[in-house]
Amino acid sequence: MPTSRLEAFSDGVFAIAITILIFDIKAPTNTQHLLPALIALWPSYLAYVISFLLIGLLWANHHVMFEHITRADRLLMFFNTLLLLVVAFVPFATSVLAATLRNGAGENVAVALYGATRIVAGLLFIAIWSHANRGGLIDAGVTTPAIRRMTRHILFGPATYAIGAVIGYFLPIVGVVIYALLILLYWLPIPQRKRVGQKVGSR
Amino acid sequence: MPTSRLEAFSDGVFAIAITILIFDIKAPTNTQHLLPALIALWPSYLAYVISFLLIGLLWANHHVMFEHITRADRLLMFFNTLLLLVVAFVPFATSVLAATLRNGAGENVAVALYGATRIVAGLLFIAIWSHANRGGLIDAGVTTPAIRRMTRHILFGPATYAIGAVIGYFLPIVGVVIYALLILLYWLPIPQRKRVGQKVGSR
Amino acid sequence: MPTSRLEAFSDGVFAIAITILIFDIKAPTNTQHLLPALIALWPSYLAYVISFLLIGLLWANHHVMFEHITRADRLLMFFNTLLLLVVAFVPFATSVLAATLRNGAGENVAVALYGATRIVAGLLFIAIWSHANRGGLIDAGVTTPAIRRMTRHILFGPATYAIGAVIGYFLPIVGVVIYALLILLYWLPIPQRKRVGQKVGSR
Amino acid sequence: MPTSRLEAFSDGVFAIAITILIFDIKAPTNTQHLLPALIALWPSYLAYVISFLLIGLLWANHHVMFEHITRADRLLMFFNTLLLLVVAFVPFATSVLAATLRNGAGENVAVALYGATRIVAGLLFIAIWSHANRGGLIDAGVTTPAIRRMTRHILFGPATYAIGAVIGYFLPIVGVVIYALLILLYWLPIPQRKRVGQKVGSR
Repeated sequence: MPTSRLEAFSDGVFAIAITILIFDIKAPTNTQHLLPALIALWPSYLAYVISFLLIGLLWANHHVMFEHITRADRLLMFFNTLLLLVVAFVPFATSVLAATLRNGAGENVAVALYGATRIVAGLLFIAIWSHANRGGLIDAGVTTPAIRRMTRHILFGPATYAIGAVIGYFLPIVGVVIYALLILLYWLPIPQRKRVGQKVGSR
Repeated sequence: MPTSRLEAFSDGVFAIAITILIFDIKAPTNTQHLLPALIALWPSYLAYVISFLLIGLLWANHHVMFEHITRADRLLMFFNTLLLLVVAFVPFATSVLAATLRNGAGENVAVALYGATRIVAGLLFIAIWSHANRGGLIDAGVTTPAIRRMTRHILFGPATYAIGAVIGYFLPIVGVVIYALLILLYWLPIPQRKRVGQKVGSR
Repeated sequence: MPTSRLEAFSDGVFAIAITILIFDIKAPTNTQHLLPALIALWPSYLAYVISFLLIGLLWANHHVMFEHITRADRLLMFFNTLLLLVVAFVPFATSVLAATLRNGAGENVAVALYGATRIVAGLLFIAIWSHANRGGLIDAGVTTPAIRRMTRHILFGPATYAIGAVIGYFLPIVGVVIYALLILLYWLPIPQRKRVGQKVGSR
Repeated sequence: MPTSRLEAFSDGVFAIAITILIFDIKAPTNTQHLLPALIALWPSYLAYVISFLLIGLLWANHHVMFEHITRADRLLMFFNTLLLLVVAFVPFATSVLAATLRNGAGENVAVALYGATRIVAGLLFIAIWSHANRGGLIDAGVTTPAIRRMTRHILFGPATYAIGAVIGYFLPIVGVVIYALLILLYWLPIPQRKRVGQKVGSR
């Protein structure tokens, strides 16, 4: 099976999950003192920006990974569905995180839940990538070094987030800062991956 | 009429219906005792996972079926719209199921409603597939054995769910377990269907 | 400008508007007497089914119309955006209609609002189609009789709905029945339109 | 990397952000005096129409810009994600604006917030466009005058909105009128841009 409709369906889920993050920021019902009321929503804005960049990043990684994968089988579709299940769960984890930051209670559990969500997403990326490698679903034109770089990149994610989640359970604010830094770090243009993309991007 | 925009529109409805399942899991407003509050939401997580895999499965089946169907007429579009109507109804049936599991009341009706939703979806798959066969909308390259396998696969769904729904009305928990097992069974890679997909997948 | 991204964007709006109709059907919070509570929601189911078939129909008509139109200019995009604005308004009109049927009050205004929404959508179809004809945006391979049939089809919609809305203001239930019949009538396979589709569908 | 999936993902976010604007208009719960209750919602309709045309316009501009850009790198994807973050924020800014118009309090802050949202979106258009120019991501067939016209068009947006936001902070109603006029002005067919589109549109 070609991967085009799988990509279209996944794009849809990523796009919806990223856009519904805004539902967690509610307009103040009392608009008499609007500016302070808007400022008081800062935990929601913070959670919105972090999660938007996270889902955007997961989408970008999904996009790059599926430029290497050209065929899908039943198991790949199953792993991909599980990944989308976790992506669609991010708005809930975000909502919990924002609620604890607003309430000033429960941040450690919320930061750990958020990190765990990201780790499971990373494990599913690993599952998709290893299955595609074992099952011969990778494009024949992709070189072995390109596959190795992608593998390293995919393994790196869950490992770093696990550290952030453990630290975040004890020092929630530090955990949030680690997540934000990891997301920005991932977004920065990484020379070697760009080269991979260009090699494969000609399809 | 070619089926490309029909597939794109259907992909959109499937993607939205699957993603909005998360709306039924609400972040606890009191985050003082967050961990027990999160654990108490287990019926919502259970319903979320089952329905996510169900809609993902319906999407995958839709995808495979429309690899065989290459043209659409008015009646096919009508049946497809009815199928999407039922797919978009799944989040409601899921919400009802989760509410009864949380409340510990009304599970038998909720399990039967959930099964009925799945059965009606299955009947609409049958309607689309038989109409496509009668109306000459199937790709000329699809072999008769491939059509027979698809027909068997499509008939199998509603039959097994009907059993689950009847049992579930009397033993709700057993019904939920049957649904979960049926969904997993369907997701498992089935050798003969994969071969079908590869034959047709060359378009 | 080609129309492919315009169609993709429109497909997205149609798919979201049709799927969010389900949000108006809320799971009963008290599940002790679930079956009567579910049955009491009948006005919501009725409004859901009618509006799902209506938006599906508008999508199908949009699809057929844009098989004839091959290029887009700024004004066409503006008219198309206004049409999408009305399509996204349908869930609100549906919600109002269901509320009045549940409350047993205000049905005449709700039925008129619903019909007016459909009429404005129809007028925007006319605006898009006449602008495309005047502006030379129609595919060169479309024959004059095919254009005339499409024109007749497009003019027919608002005219019949106007009758339904006027009658519905005085006899709301009759108005709802007229809407339902008109939607079903439109969905039935109409021989001449099918032929148009096949001529053009070869692109 | 080609831009096709980036465009599909962006189309999805634009389509969802534009459609969920309708969630801010709630059906009256008391339908005894439905007509006055519906009329009392005029600030919500006004905000809905303005924001629908705004997001539609941003989508159209995104569409035209990406007809010039043929390749994406990591930084372009990052800027595009930030732009989508702002687009998905528009429903919140709209909801705040409608709330202040209904309450008759806080309009100046709401109008300034709305304008600021539009300005940030405009700055991100500038960031994407300059990065694409510097990074050699523009289609080789695009002429220098076409690039200059696009640059002027992109710079024009935030400048005019800044004026609207400043005036709107002191005279909120005038600010809303300025926004509405700017959006309509942008939607009007501009001869030179249409020509640009036709040159590039042949891809």
